[in-house]
Parts: sequence; structure tokens; C-alpha cells
Amino acid sequence: MKKITILGIMLALVAIIYAFPAFAGTDDALLGRAKQFFGPLPSAMTSPENPITPEKVKLGKMLFYEWRISSDGTVSCNRCHQFNFYATDALKKSIGVRCRENPRNSPTVLNAADQIAEHWIGNRKSVEDQAKQALLGKASFGMPSYESVVKRLGKLGYGPFFKDAFPGEDDPVSMDNFAKAVGAFERTLVTPSPFDAYLKGNTNALTERQKKGLKTFIDTGCMTCHSGTYVGGQMYQKFGIFAPYWKYTKSGKIDKGRYAVTRNEADRYVFKVPVLRNVEKTAPYFHDGSVDRLEEAVFIMAKIQLGKTLNKERRDDIVAFLNSLTGELSDEILKVPLLPAKD
Amino acid sequence: MKKITILGIMLALVAIIYAFPAFAGTDDALLGRAKQFFGPLPSAMTSPENPITPEKVKLGKMLFYEWRISSDGTVSCNRCHQFNFYATDALKKSIGVRCRENPRNSPTVLNAADQIAEHWIGNRKSVEDQAKQALLGKASFGMPSYESVVKRLGKLGYGPFFKDAFPGEDDPVSMDNFAKAVGAFERTLVTPSPFDAYLKGNTNALTERQKKGLKTFIDTGCMTCHSGTYVGGQMYQKFGIFAPYWKYTKSGKIDKGRYAVTRNEADRYVFKVPVLRNVEKTAPYFHDGSVDRLEEAVFIMAKIQLGKTLNKERRDDIVAFLNSLTGELSDEILKVPLLPAKD
Repeated sequence: MKKITILGIMLALVAIIYAFPAFAGTDDALLGRAKQFFGPLPSAMTSPENPITPEKVKLGKMLFYEWRISSDGTVSCNRCHQFNFYATDALKKSIGVRCRENPRNSPTVLNAADQIAEHWIGNRKSVEDQAKQALLGKASFGMPSYESVVKRLGKLGYGPFFKDAFPGEDDPVSMDNFAKAVGAFERTLVTPSPFDAYLKGNTNALTERQKKGLKTFIDTGCMTCHSGTYVGGQMYQKFGIFAPYWKYTKSGKIDKGRYAVTRNEADRYVFKVPVLRNVEKTAPYFHDGSVDRLEEAVFIMAKIQLGKTLNKERRDDIVAFLNSLTGELSDEILKVPLLPAKD
Repeated sequence: MKKITILGIMLALVAIIYAFPAFAGTDDALLGRAKQFFGPLPSAMTSPENPITPEKVKLGKMLFYEWRISSDGTVSCNRCHQFNFYATDALKKSIGVRCRENPRNSPTVLNAADQIAEHWIGNRKSVEDQAKQALLGKASFGMPSYESVVKRLGKLGYGPFFKDAFPGEDDPVSMDNFAKAVGAFERTLVTPSPFDAYLKGNTNALTERQKKGLKTFIDTGCMTCHSGTYVGGQMYQKFGIFAPYWKYTKSGKIDKGRYAVTRNEADRYVFKVPVLRNVEKTAPYFHDGSVDRLEEAVFIMAKIQLGKTLNKERRDDIVAFLNSLTGELSDEILKVPLLPAKD
């Protein structure tokens, strides 16, 4: 009798578990589940250390396009983060000064400033830190020293713009202020999408297929890592839990990931979980750009991160949901600034 | 008596000649002289062979930014013609795929489509011809064939955009249509400046210094070559009439100029007279970018083209006038287009 009761309770539980996804098929229930894992974008990605001001953003945007501060005059932030490609460069791995290849794929700078860290292996602590360090990167701007950048900025006529952005400072043209200005600009780069409208309660903002995909995304367990406002960017994770990633991707050289930063064996093949906002528009995929198509990337992720083999329908449902993360780039984001002509 | 009469007439003529510049010092007279040599910009640079349509311009603008049609994925038209630098690249000589250096400085594509030919040595007959030929240039896009470009455009998802731009065509994705679309976009790139307002009769559109400079520009003879709507672009001329150009510039290798096109001895060191619109913003100067500062470029031009040594005042007057050719880049010009994400 006791055994039957326990069996009955277990069966009831199984029934509830099976019933739950069906229940979640209704709009309100699915929205309720989604709200547990995700949130709508803020209007800007603020930081107490670097308050956003219009003057900083204006200067930061100019500096973002300034390629005369690279060693061969062919690299700006915009070189690897072009807004026509949703702030990526559409390359497997970015190419910097003197045609030097970066070790990894260029992530978008849209919706990027609120992550736990920047870069695939988390070796840049903030967008400000990234902007500054890129200047000395051998395969990015390739400048010999920060002093040489500051000198060059002065010659190019940026003095008055730094003065406006950092009022009252004796020596406003500095590397820290460069970082703050570019960072302030990048903190404004948010791209609200249908998914944000949905999370705010407009259940018609997603198509039926996208809602089905959202459910599949959650049920499959993708949100275990890809969660929060940015659908990622909040943790590190080993790439290839159920199988080595290079067995499924078209990677060449094997990348040790965050191990390169920490020298901790536990960080071997560990990467930052990327933000999935605008993922439809930011091919090729993964840290090495080794996969061209989103369908394939989704299949591989389920396979080697969650040990699940998605059939075509479920894979395409998830892709449909991911397309709802494609945001709008404002006229302000898409407008190119004119740069000082002095030299 | 007869001799005295002739002398009298001659003296009167000399007096008139001397009086003329003084007379031209008044606003109306200077404007009258300016109108003999120059004209205001049209709203677009039309061509009967390639009528401008909104659909062609839309497609052409997208293609202008498309760098996935270059051999290493790092060159678009925009790479050498960035609007933040007034559609130049701010380099001495442009750098194309695989870091290959172009033989000459990148001219602006603003106000460029009505010239006798394109490129410094006139080896591109139109903006359409230039757009197309650049694709195969070893130091520009570096593509192996036009067929490979057409194939790539199809894969990238440009089909519907070509169909819209070239309605009724069986096979709209073609190299000729690529050229027409990019050309149509470039034909819209006009930047009206204070000088245009002046030429239309608003004598207050130029400052006193700029008007003095305009007069000096004419009196010195600069308008012998730099004339017309675009203040240049209408003829070829030997660079270095009074002295070899490389004695005054900081040129390295000596460039034979248009001789490379015609193999005619008379074309040795002959270049197209460049358009001077926006010249304030398009440093470095000359076919090889060998001079950084506009003051120096003006001094050299007077010296070796006209055999005149400008003092500082006259040189700076001319620079002041040239600054009145700096035009306004419309929001439309400065807006980056989003590109298809398919591959």
C-alpha cells in the first residue's frame, strides 16, 4: 500500500513535469518562465566608475573611428566593430595592423558593456580596459606606448574635445580619459529587440515560432548559461563538456581558453559565455569563428554543452527565437562622426 | 601726335588693367569674376548612362561598405573612402588586401563623379568603371575574377536588392549592375559649402579673409587648372612645370603619372588636376600623399606650376579660400547601412 502511494506520488510528479511544458505553451506561462531567466535591456549600460555624459560619448565615438592612432594607420575600434555588421568584422578572426591575425573572433560591442569581463577569455575587465589595452595589442592597434598615443591625439587636434569631456582637468588628454570616453560611448550601444518588448509584456512581439523556440531554448537548458539581460556574458564555461569542441567545429589550432589567463587546469578550454543578442547578425560563430551558420552553432552547443541531439525542428525553433534578439540600431548608432583634420 | 595718341591709349589700357583687381575688390566685382571660373554644385552628379534611382542608391551604398567581396575580407570601398575622413583614408597611399600598398593616394569620392576621368592618372573612365575595376586590383579588393564576386554577392543575399534596383532583368546580380549601383550612390555624394552659397549670390557666405583668398587664388592663376564646379577634375596637367615636383615634395619613388597609361612622352609626370572641394579635410596631399599640410601644398603648387613664390600672407589667404570649399556631409551620407547577414 505504502509502495503504491509512493509510486502514485512519483507518477503524479512525472505527470506534473510533463504537464508543465504544455502549460507553459500558453502565453502568460511562457512569459512568466522567460522572466525568471531574462530581462529587458536598459537604455544604457551605466557604470558608477564612468558616468555617461554627452561630451564623453561624443569624444568616445570620434575616437572609436580614429585609425590615425594605430601604428600603420589602418586600425580603429571600428575596423573590427563595424556597425554595418552589427559591430563585428564578419571575419573568422580579426586582422589588425600589418595584417596580423588576432587569436580570436571579434565579438560585437553592442550590448557588451555589462558582462563579467570583456574578450572571449575574460582578460579585459571592462570596455574601458579593453579600449585602452587594444592600443598596444600587436595584432590590433600595435602602438609602441601609451605616451605615443597621447602625443598623437594632441597633434590630431583632440585637445578641445577632451577638455569638453573632462572639464576642470589640468591635463585632460590622457589614456585613462581615452578609455573612459570610448567606454562611455560603448555603454550607450544598446539595441532593443522584439524579445525586449515581449519581456515587457507584449506577448505579440514574438511570432508563434519564436515563442516555441523560446520554450525549446529553456527546455533544452540553453538558459543555464545564456541567461540574464544579455542572454549571456555573465559566466565562464568550458567549451565542450560532453565532447572536445574541435571534434564538432571546424577549428584549426586548439585554443586553451581562459587557461592562458589563469594557468589553472580547471580553466582549460573555458571561455566566457557570449552574449546572444544580435547573434543572427554576427556570424561566423564561436571564439575562433569556426562555424558559419547559426543552425550549426545551435546544434553543436546542444550536443557538446548539454549532451542533447536536437532534431531539425527543435534546432530551427531555437534559431527562430534567437532571431527575436536582433535589435534595432538607432540612427545615432549608425551615424559616422567627422574627425579632426589637423596633423 | 599719332605716337602720343598710341602711348595715351596704351597708358589707359595699363591703367584699366591695374584698376581691375582693385575694382574686383568690391564684392559684386569679385563675385562676377568668380562666376567666370566656378559654379555651384548640382544636387547630384547625373549621368544619362546611369540614371540615379533610390533603389540603385540604396544597393550601391550597401555595396560600398561590403568587404566580404574582397579576397581577404578586409577591403570595401569604404576602407579607402571613409566618410569620417571626408571619404579618404588619411594615409599617404592606400593599403588594400594583404597589406598591399596602392601606388597612389586615395582621392575623395565626394563630388568626384563629374570629372573627365577617375584616379590620379585617369585610368578609370568613370566612377562606375572605377568601382568595378577596383574589385580585381591586386592592392585593392584582390578578387580573382568578376565571376567570383557575382557568386559571392548571391551567397551573401544581395539578390533581392539587385532585383529591386534593376527591375525586369532576368539576371540582375551582375558586375555591370554592381558598377551602376555603386556609381549611382557615388553620384549622390555632393557636399555644398559656403563657396556654393557665395556663387549663388550670398556675398556674406565667405569671410573677408576667404574673399581675399579667392581673389589671390584667381590673381595667382590657380584657376587656370582648378576651375569649374568642382574647382578641378576637368583636365590633365604636368606636375612640376617650373621644376621637377620631387625637388619640392617629400616624394620617394618618382611617379611617371599618365605616361603609364598612354606611353606618350608628353604625358610623363602628368596627372589629373584634382578636385579641391573639401581639400582642407583630405590631407595628406598630392598623388603620393607626400605633403601633410595644406599651406605647404599651396606654396609648392604656386612655385612649380606657376613659377610664383607666395609670401606667407598670400599663401594663407589662399588656404582661407580653400577652407570655404569644405562642405556639409548630410545625415544621409553619414549614415551607415546594415548589410545582409547571410553567407
